[in-house]
Amino acid sequence: MKKELSFNIPASNLPRLVIIGGGFAGIELVKHLKKSDFQIVLLDRHNYHTFQPLLYQVATAGLEPDSIAGPLRKLFKRQKNVFFRMASVDQVDHDRKEIHTSIGELRYDYIVFAHGTVTNYFGNDKLKENSFPLKQIPQALDLRSNILQNLEKAVLVNDLNQRQALMNFVIVGGGPTGVEVAGALGELKLHVLPRDFPELDLRSMQIHLVEGTDRLLGGMSEQAGEKAKKYLGKFEVQVWLKKMVKEYDGIEVKFDSGEQILTKNLIWAAGVTGNVLAGIPESSLGKGNRLIVDDYSNVKGLKNAYAIGDIAIMQTKDFPEGHPQQAPVAIQQAKNLATNLSKIQRGKTPKRFKYNDRGSMATVGRNRAVVDLKFWKFQGAFAWLVWMFVHLMSIYSVRNRFVTLMNWMWNYFTYDRGARLIIRPFVPNKNKDEKSAELEKL
Amino acid sequence: MKKELSFNIPASNLPRLVIIGGGFAGIELVKHLKKSDFQIVLLDRHNYHTFQPLLYQVATAGLEPDSIAGPLRKLFKRQKNVFFRMASVDQVDHDRKEIHTSIGELRYDYIVFAHGTVTNYFGNDKLKENSFPLKQIPQALDLRSNILQNLEKAVLVNDLNQRQALMNFVIVGGGPTGVEVAGALGELKLHVLPRDFPELDLRSMQIHLVEGTDRLLGGMSEQAGEKAKKYLGKFEVQVWLKKMVKEYDGIEVKFDSGEQILTKNLIWAAGVTGNVLAGIPESSLGKGNRLIVDDYSNVKGLKNAYAIGDIAIMQTKDFPEGHPQQAPVAIQQAKNLATNLSKIQRGKTPKRFKYNDRGSMATVGRNRAVVDLKFWKFQGAFAWLVWMFVHLMSIYSVRNRFVTLMNWMWNYFTYDRGARLIIRPFVPNKNKDEKSAELEKL
Repeated sequence: MKKELSFNIPASNLPRLVIIGGGFAGIELVKHLKKSDFQIVLLDRHNYHTFQPLLYQVATAGLEPDSIAGPLRKLFKRQKNVFFRMASVDQVDHDRKEIHTSIGELRYDYIVFAHGTVTNYFGNDKLKENSFPLKQIPQALDLRSNILQNLEKAVLVNDLNQRQALMNFVIVGGGPTGVEVAGALGELKLHVLPRDFPELDLRSMQIHLVEGTDRLLGGMSEQAGEKAKKYLGKFEVQVWLKKMVKEYDGIEVKFDSGEQILTKNLIWAAGVTGNVLAGIPESSLGKGNRLIVDDYSNVKGLKNAYAIGDIAIMQTKDFPEGHPQQAPVAIQQAKNLATNLSKIQRGKTPKRFKYNDRGSMATVGRNRAVVDLKFWKFQGAFAWLVWMFVHLMSIYSVRNRFVTLMNWMWNYFTYDRGARLIIRPFVPNKNKDEKSAELEKL
Repeated sequence: MKKELSFNIPASNLPRLVIIGGGFAGIELVKHLKKSDFQIVLLDRHNYHTFQPLLYQVATAGLEPDSIAGPLRKLFKRQKNVFFRMASVDQVDHDRKEIHTSIGELRYDYIVFAHGTVTNYFGNDKLKENSFPLKQIPQALDLRSNILQNLEKAVLVNDLNQRQALMNFVIVGGGPTGVEVAGALGELKLHVLPRDFPELDLRSMQIHLVEGTDRLLGGMSEQAGEKAKKYLGKFEVQVWLKKMVKEYDGIEVKFDSGEQILTKNLIWAAGVTGNVLAGIPESSLGKGNRLIVDDYSNVKGLKNAYAIGDIAIMQTKDFPEGHPQQAPVAIQQAKNLATNLSKIQRGKTPKRFKYNDRGSMATVGRNRAVVDLKFWKFQGAFAWLVWMFVHLMSIYSVRNRFVTLMNWMWNYFTYDRGARLIIRPFVPNKNKDEKSAELEKL
């Protein structure tokens, strides 16, 4: 009986549905279970939902976090059967229907894994230690501070190699995140930094985008990849294909081709891997540590356990390798699962998931984006407007939409970036975290 | 000759003027030296100017930092003779006309101290360790995260004392900062948190404002202090006068009166003290560690050294204890010094500083503020509009003004606070800073 009291969630006759993760999949699921007969517990390690597609703009000083994140509690304030708890999940015991979290244990009747992926360093610890990932808001803020701090340092340095290391940027991974970060840095280089740093010769600031395969934007059409490459050139980004990182010590990155580049700014956007929870049977794990699910999002071998979004791998005829790890898939899987959970409760037959691919898009920068629709692929200024409109409409709340739009308009017309502030955690002598201590050194 | 090269500032025939601090005094001085014949070096430990009067709104989730801070480099991008360097100053050697900083040494011809004050804990280390100061943006963000995190914890706790400690707020110091934080917390309690935390009985969230003297807003009229107290009552803030903190261990605050309050949220706004630099002669230091200056802002005993703003104490007939440590004084002293420096260069007689007191004001919350003008003191909704207008017009840049206004309108009409995000530094297992580790415990 004591367990029932854990998390201070009131006892209820409704079956308890625990959802791990407040990303696109998680919040969409909760939203669509509005009229369901479940007691819903949503867990996330943050108290906010992050609109990940625009995270790169936080990292490049275009937006502050409040534009792209919104409190989870606010989102569900009208759903009386939803309980949010800020917690990270350590372990799942599905036999006993219990999870172990940072705030204690909780019993469940149904569980939904929607906790997504983490950055994949492919076992390279040095790389993990020295590079900047870009999956969460604190990471984006760290990257922003690092970029600006290194430029402040470049002003002071006379050793040309040191200065180059501070002013060079290497982005690894030619997917949407890599392309978007590279383009945004190019915009900073061309339009914002020259006015801020008249002391620096910004022509010598190099931006390298490195991709292992033979093309950019692997998930999109060849045409989109080609155009993105061309656009990146206009933002003075050097694109390297078929090149892989071998090692990185925090100062110099070495490639498998034998080449090397000096840089203190390596942004790692080259891959993700499923966020594996202890207690999940080996047999439920698929490629990339994703949870194998059937057409109903049911996790292989686990009854009443579901997985949706990036963490799930659903192998179908159309997608033998699983669906792309993108927001639209997560959202559609969440909606389908919400419907099915209600159907199951009423003893009705659930519906198979079918992905409706509405297309995909990526932006490079000012007036330049690429859009792939089913029967129409286009690029350029109109694509950029479409990209902005779609992203604005998909964002969390009316307030965030408004704040983002205002910032975009300001940034567009003034060539300014309002958030170029170096804000490190407050460390009055003590508590200096290692990363910033290391940055101080150089 | 080597020293000339330090900081990578080009050699020049102009005398070098070093300004320490990019607060109100520092930036105003630089601005008004636009046409002067100095090579100006501005130093600040941050790369941005902070509009301190609105810092409390960052701490209470009303604004993000980009609303109230702006990059210093942007501010002076059109002034060719100004060099900004991000550095903290450790020591001054005025005999040799050299300063020692975190980025090396620098020679100067003239020096201006405009580095303000730091929080004064009156030697109480325990207090310093456990309380939240509110002088800088990282501190405001820390406080914001702490407030929200403690409420998340309160949801989970069953021990009534523990829950009370998490939900109680004690603000020490009845000056403008204390009054404004207390009022903003009251607004959160009344309008924002009940929707976010239906699980908590927010009536039991206590907000205590504690002041050592017999009135609030000591720098303003008695009428203003009385009204502020009355308004705070409407926001359910309990005001305690003639009460001093004896000790605080992070959980329970003890007062000299013998009373005690359980709280994990103690905000310390009870005093500041001059930020003393090593190398400054004892004889130049006045009350509160401020630098004694004459009517021309010249530091006592140091030729070609000036101090303006909060760090300076200028004892005049009208202000035998020095001027109030407020932005208007800093700004006016900066303007006067700019004029005088130009006069001195041209061999003309400098002008005595005379403070033009245009009045002062403080806000308590929604529709409630107090304003003291020379011949007119008023309070209430109109005072609140005046407060907003004056603050909006004083803020850093057009962009910040606009962003702040938009946020205020949104907050006013929706009773919402967009920035209630718990954003801690990214600490992937390692690097956990002590403060957040301690917060995790409870």
